[in-house]
Amino acid sequence: MSTITAFDTSDVRFPTSVLLDGSDAMNPDPDYSAAYLRIRTDSDDGLEGHGFAFTIGRGNDIEVDAIAALSPYILGRNVEELLADMGATWRELVYDSQLRWLGPEKGIMHMAIGAVVNALWDLKAKREGKPLWLLLAEMTPEEIVALVDFRYLTDALNPEEALDILRGAVSGRDERTATLRREGYPAYTTSPGWLGYDDAKLARLCREAVEHGYQQIKLKVGANLQDDIRRMGIAREVCGPDIKIAVDANQRWGVDEAIAWMKELKRFDVAWIEEPTSPDDILGHAAIARGVAPIPVATGEHVQSRIIFKQMLQADALQVLQIDATRVAGVNENVAILLLAAKFGVRVCPHAGGVGLCEAVQHLSMFDYVAVSGSMEGRMIEYVDHLHEHFAIPVDVRAARYFPPTEPGAGYEMFEASVAEYTFPRVLEPVAP
Amino acid sequence: MSTITAFDTSDVRFPTSVLLDGSDAMNPDPDYSAAYLRIRTDSDDGLEGHGFAFTIGRGNDIEVDAIAALSPYILGRNVEELLADMGATWRELVYDSQLRWLGPEKGIMHMAIGAVVNALWDLKAKREGKPLWLLLAEMTPEEIVALVDFRYLTDALNPEEALDILRGAVSGRDERTATLRREGYPAYTTSPGWLGYDDAKLARLCREAVEHGYQQIKLKVGANLQDDIRRMGIAREVCGPDIKIAVDANQRWGVDEAIAWMKELKRFDVAWIEEPTSPDDILGHAAIARGVAPIPVATGEHVQSRIIFKQMLQADALQVLQIDATRVAGVNENVAILLLAAKFGVRVCPHAGGVGLCEAVQHLSMFDYVAVSGSMEGRMIEYVDHLHEHFAIPVDVRAARYFPPTEPGAGYEMFEASVAEYTFPRVLEPVAP
Repeated sequence: MSTITAFDTSDVRFPTSVLLDGSDAMNPDPDYSAAYLRIRTDSDDGLEGHGFAFTIGRGNDIEVDAIAALSPYILGRNVEELLADMGATWRELVYDSQLRWLGPEKGIMHMAIGAVVNALWDLKAKREGKPLWLLLAEMTPEEIVALVDFRYLTDALNPEEALDILRGAVSGRDERTATLRREGYPAYTTSPGWLGYDDAKLARLCREAVEHGYQQIKLKVGANLQDDIRRMGIAREVCGPDIKIAVDANQRWGVDEAIAWMKELKRFDVAWIEEPTSPDDILGHAAIARGVAPIPVATGEHVQSRIIFKQMLQADALQVLQIDATRVAGVNENVAILLLAAKFGVRVCPHAGGVGLCEAVQHLSMFDYVAVSGSMEGRMIEYVDHLHEHFAIPVDVRAARYFPPTEPGAGYEMFEASVAEYTFPRVLEPVAP
Repeated sequence: MSTITAFDTSDVRFPTSVLLDGSDAMNPDPDYSAAYLRIRTDSDDGLEGHGFAFTIGRGNDIEVDAIAALSPYILGRNVEELLADMGATWRELVYDSQLRWLGPEKGIMHMAIGAVVNALWDLKAKREGKPLWLLLAEMTPEEIVALVDFRYLTDALNPEEALDILRGAVSGRDERTATLRREGYPAYTTSPGWLGYDDAKLARLCREAVEHGYQQIKLKVGANLQDDIRRMGIAREVCGPDIKIAVDANQRWGVDEAIAWMKELKRFDVAWIEEPTSPDDILGHAAIARGVAPIPVATGEHVQSRIIFKQMLQADALQVLQIDATRVAGVNENVAILLLAAKFGVRVCPHAGGVGLCEAVQHLSMFDYVAVSGSMEGRMIEYVDHLHEHFAIPVDVRAARYFPPTEPGAGYEMFEASVAEYTFPRVLEPVAP
């Protein structure tokens, strides 16, 4: 029996804005950051749980404060009890009646809960000596369903349906695990497409992406239509007709504008249009999906919760569902979202990049492949070649495929030296924009 | 010409949980709190702008931190410039590309923007020597439309339609202003209905509400069906058949549960069912509205933004729209929401109570009556008799009607002594739940 003895937060920020990596139509100068959490116990095993919420700079300190506000739920608690029923642990955090007012289940507080939940999963996976994807994929359907809170989901998915989906995928788990280890999971890359890059850099990076074996790349669009047409032309010419090219507007448009803009881009054969409008606009996405069909609509990196994803699926508002490892309340909620996607037969292509998002989210896609959807068809994980060197278990991406982590953990652990080097000084006055 | 010289935040908490005022099925023990902001300038007029975000206790410190993070946008700025174009000021705050990641436009960060925007409106109203409702109601339609960001609204409401609505209400403004001053604006009361009260207290408070002239009361429901049936029976018996009784489930249910539960309560003649499920579930509310018709569905106190309200209206998911003074990004966003409600012909009955919400939100309903919808039909502002003594301009509620404030300001200003007395000590460790 052991106790949680430390709950340490850090405000970690990488000055990525200097190189305009990650620049898009709504985010011209992100500083990739992590509101970072490290949980320690008094157990002899010395294992720790690490988790974080990803932000893009200013406000990372507020996210850290929100994580710290959850320490009374964790510090001093019995480790085995917390980890034994992760469904109950999740509910305890999400249903704090006072903190709930600050969301509910959205934004800073919900992301903070995600960081805590994920740190606990990291600890749980290390204790069981497995990478998270395998830990989840080896659970029984009943254990997986017990992770999910169905309160606001039953009009779309009830526990019995979730069990049916999972039971249907039990046979073949071993075979798919072997396939995954042998062939990896498909990746696509956003590295060429940031808005801050000039045409020559765009062309060079497109060429390199194809050479590295990527079957899909993604370009940022939405700031200026003529620029987008020119850049799409360059990308299509360099990549040739067989490479898929998705575009990402990062919420720039209203409904009509999205439809009109995509009319101009569709001649380049667009693999999907991502975040055409507000991530909160379910009916707007549905209208856009109808208006730009057959181009699929993708969204998710800013979708606040399983409740919005549920409706996106009910309304046929998205054809590509993009989970994110740190936007919702952690692994449990992403399991719910994967089950919803499976119920509706929609493919999941996670958002990644940023800092550590590739390391973390791959576990969810791999679990999905082995134990939920059972399919890699049309599915791929975003890949961006940034900041992996700071992670204890960096992604193993070769020939445009993610190879499954073998070391125990959930992927959130940053090197202590990196955390120390990039810890942002706590200033008395907030940073000016 | 003057400059903003101080941007002071306070963590103000009232220990209301001791008396179980404000207890409901999801919020058993709220401590009504305000993440409070006071803006001062170097002008000789000595006028200040006050604003706050309402929370229910734990986490109020995080909300304060989020407000403080916005100080670089305000501190040292030219006052006249900031106040002259409140639409531009709003967009500057909402579209900070890095802080936006923490929402976008939802939760802690969005409420913090609301507190800042409202403090600026408070200052603007004081400078113009008018209560906020009158300041807004005397603006031209063009000036009002310029307050609104239409980026994600045009599929439901464009600037021309908004102008038409406002122009249509220009004639009659003077007459309605006179009516408002003479007759006040209708109120309903939630004071009798908190779940923490016993039956005798419920009956006594129902009787008092009727004696005070209230035409509608509201009861909290959703924790236990048999209790709800008993309590509704008591309330209906005490109030008689002519008083409207609304019920409020505070997000307790899923869709099917809401419909089933209301089948059991409808025999008591229910005025509306409020927050039957997650405030993020537009399609769920729409399904419930169809399932419980003709009982109207009401929601809004937790609706994060105009984008969700837009969809609620598009989907016919609510029949009573409940704006809140501190949930969204301030006056500007509530003006957008009032315009949406007018476009869809839905009545607005604001959420109030808490601390200072009555003082603040009345301005919006009164502006709506004079200059937007032009109607009080079926409309009323929630009233709870708590904590008004702490406000510089307390509500003037008589015979179950709100009489319009005459003093300049937006209603958010708390007495300095109250702020000082109830400032929560900043502790190193977060407070245990």
